Amino acid sequence: MKGKEQQMAINIAILGFGTVGSGVAETLDINKELITKRVGEEINVKYILDIRDFPESKFANLVTHNADEVFDSDILIAVETIGGARIAYEYTKRALSLGISVVTSNKELVSTHGPELIKIAQENNCCYLFEAAVGGGIPIIRPLYKCLAANKITKIAGIVNGTTNYILSQMKDEGIDFDTALKQAQANGFAEANPSADIDGIDAQRKISILSTIANDGAYIAPDQISAEGISAITNDDFEFASSIGCDIKLIALYEAGEDKPVVYVAPTLVAKSNLLFNVSGVFNAIMVEGNSLGQAMFYGQGAGTLPTASAVCGDILEAAMSNPTENRTWTEESVAITPYDEIAADIVVRADVPAKVITAAEGYECEVLSDEAILVKGIRHKDIASLVSETGAKSWMHYLK
Amino acid sequence: MKGKEQQMAINIAILGFGTVGSGVAETLDINKELITKRVGEEINVKYILDIRDFPESKFANLVTHNADEVFDSDILIAVETIGGARIAYEYTKRALSLGISVVTSNKELVSTHGPELIKIAQENNCCYLFEAAVGGGIPIIRPLYKCLAANKITKIAGIVNGTTNYILSQMKDEGIDFDTALKQAQANGFAEANPSADIDGIDAQRKISILSTIANDGAYIAPDQISAEGISAITNDDFEFASSIGCDIKLIALYEAGEDKPVVYVAPTLVAKSNLLFNVSGVFNAIMVEGNSLGQAMFYGQGAGTLPTASAVCGDILEAAMSNPTENRTWTEESVAITPYDEIAADIVVRADVPAKVITAAEGYECEVLSDEAILVKGIRHKDIASLVSETGAKSWMHYLK
Repeated sequence: MKGKEQQMAINIAILGFGTVGSGVAETLDINKELITKRVGEEINVKYILDIRDFPESKFANLVTHNADEVFDSDILIAVETIGGARIAYEYTKRALSLGISVVTSNKELVSTHGPELIKIAQENNCCYLFEAAVGGGIPIIRPLYKCLAANKITKIAGIVNGTTNYILSQMKDEGIDFDTALKQAQANGFAEANPSADIDGIDAQRKISILSTIANDGAYIAPDQISAEGISAITNDDFEFASSIGCDIKLIALYEAGEDKPVVYVAPTLVAKSNLLFNVSGVFNAIMVEGNSLGQAMFYGQGAGTLPTASAVCGDILEAAMSNPTENRTWTEESVAITPYDEIAADIVVRADVPAKVITAAEGYECEVLSDEAILVKGIRHKDIASLVSETGAKSWMHYLK
Repeated sequence: MKGKEQQMAINIAILGFGTVGSGVAETLDINKELITKRVGEEINVKYILDIRDFPESKFANLVTHNADEVFDSDILIAVETIGGARIAYEYTKRALSLGISVVTSNKELVSTHGPELIKIAQENNCCYLFEAAVGGGIPIIRPLYKCLAANKITKIAGIVNGTTNYILSQMKDEGIDFDTALKQAQANGFAEANPSADIDGIDAQRKISILSTIANDGAYIAPDQISAEGISAITNDDFEFASSIGCDIKLIALYEAGEDKPVVYVAPTLVAKSNLLFNVSGVFNAIMVEGNSLGQAMFYGQGAGTLPTASAVCGDILEAAMSNPTENRTWTEESVAITPYDEIAADIVVRADVPAKVITAAEGYECEVLSDEAILVKGIRHKDIASLVSETGAKSWMHYLK
């Protein structure tokens, strides 16, 4: 850290004083004593940069509207909790170019500009850390980089969006339809007024972009390459069907190393009871990771919320304060190719009145009859699904995770 | 790392070529290419120190019986997979004193001599790392130290011993008694010929000693202070009773920060269906952590086994190879006091024919009737339990985790 040894405290700035930013100030405040002990120096919030004022906040006196005042100061770490990829992008570049480490919960920015921002950080001998960008408070980015460093990561399957998991859980438990569940989620503060990024799978797409790039050893997988299907078409009838075959419906973000190219997509998925993800309900997130030495591990916790997300951001602040930014976490500049969606071989469940027709039409694929209207077809290529459905007059199909 | 920059490869030695040691050699071998890429240098196993020969192993030519040859060489990292606290202790001290980093899966050694060994490592500017000592392949030590660094850890509840969890799962699922389940576990290689360390809770006691010390900010909590009850007294009747109130029986290792002193113990526990630990079966481990900012997170995976444990050991090897040992992970020299077992306030379920008697006798404690023979008594001090049971003629009692 530049100049760290001359200071009595490590000065930081919080850029954007919304839900997460205020949680960061709060966490640093309530745990000040133990953090100072662990770091060996005090972490001091010197500025809070926001366009608004917060006269009611106990941190009101730290608020400034003047970015120059912040960037020209002696801060060593900037906490970017602005969100989006515009002003957050400009401020992050500016900070990193000055050798100021940046920690963030901004999955949109990391997933779209990660390669460039990590490079700028390395060139300026500082850190760009984003543990909070995936899974809220759940430790996942650092475990992937560090604890599982000796593994080839073969698969990641995650429930990474709390809003959609809450809506799906409500539909299942309360028997209410999608629109009602969405309105309830909005009323309870679990969904935004414009819920598209969540319900259309865009948030999950960004998060699996980040996880996939790390699993793929830094070979960047841009979000706009990743097929994402949301949950707005899911009906209560789908849940009844799922229940009849011992499954639940979850929005799953998937990465597989693949034989040739990686397989990455986001889709509503029938999750079997035997899978631990089956029991992940409400706003909780869980991420299952498979490594070639590790076997399976799962990381579970609160995927969003002020304090859990702040917990992860603050962990990164302590990391940036204590570590030398020596790690080799480069991402390739260009996105690498992934398996085209049509070519992906997937396990699906086809719902049809006459299972025998499906089994005949799916010749060459391994099939398993799950009930008198449900047939599991294994490893079928996506481009072959439409004709299978139309040929057999099947009602519907969905991805399946055992 | 001493002399790292002058070398083309980082030489390491594996001390003890048993289950875990051979898994480490195997993992480093199968993932050689990606590990070299990630570290920037090759990790080269130069010696395998063991009293035996392994003529059938592809690593046979690396085996030596001469410790001096190993310690006088240019190795930078020693992998201690000997086990126990005698020769492993001597070799670990010798390596660390020479500035050779040591990584290990040895929970006995870490829990009994951790304070001294960490101190020697710090004095000699090298690392003593033990991610694999708890939870096998599951990342837990580093997440506690790093990702959750900004939290006060308020509680840890874990299933940390795969052998006992396997035996309990078999008793429940197959309806077999403890002795039969133990014999099956031994036949399947999940329990040792002398199973005492597992079934008497000693292994869990060592692991919760390590986790508690970390959660307690390095204030050392020695294993011999921690009350540990094993599972050999659990009967099939206990499982029927548990099932009747929607619970399963798990061997739980518990840490709570406590108001005055930490609360730490190991005990068979009725785990309610609503708790995620309920679904952790067979040889799997899971550790639930609560932080004051984080809320709850759970870490799940294979708690033992050659390759999963090797995955964690190898993650530490990469850490030792890449990092400067700058971290402040000191443990106090002396064990600090924890709440005496008798004074611990616990939630328990009392099994009695006449619940009303228990409720009357437990006056002053909050009670909840779970069934016509089960009463949950909250926060009762352990020293008051015996008289409650004898006064009311209760059949039995057990700890309870919601």
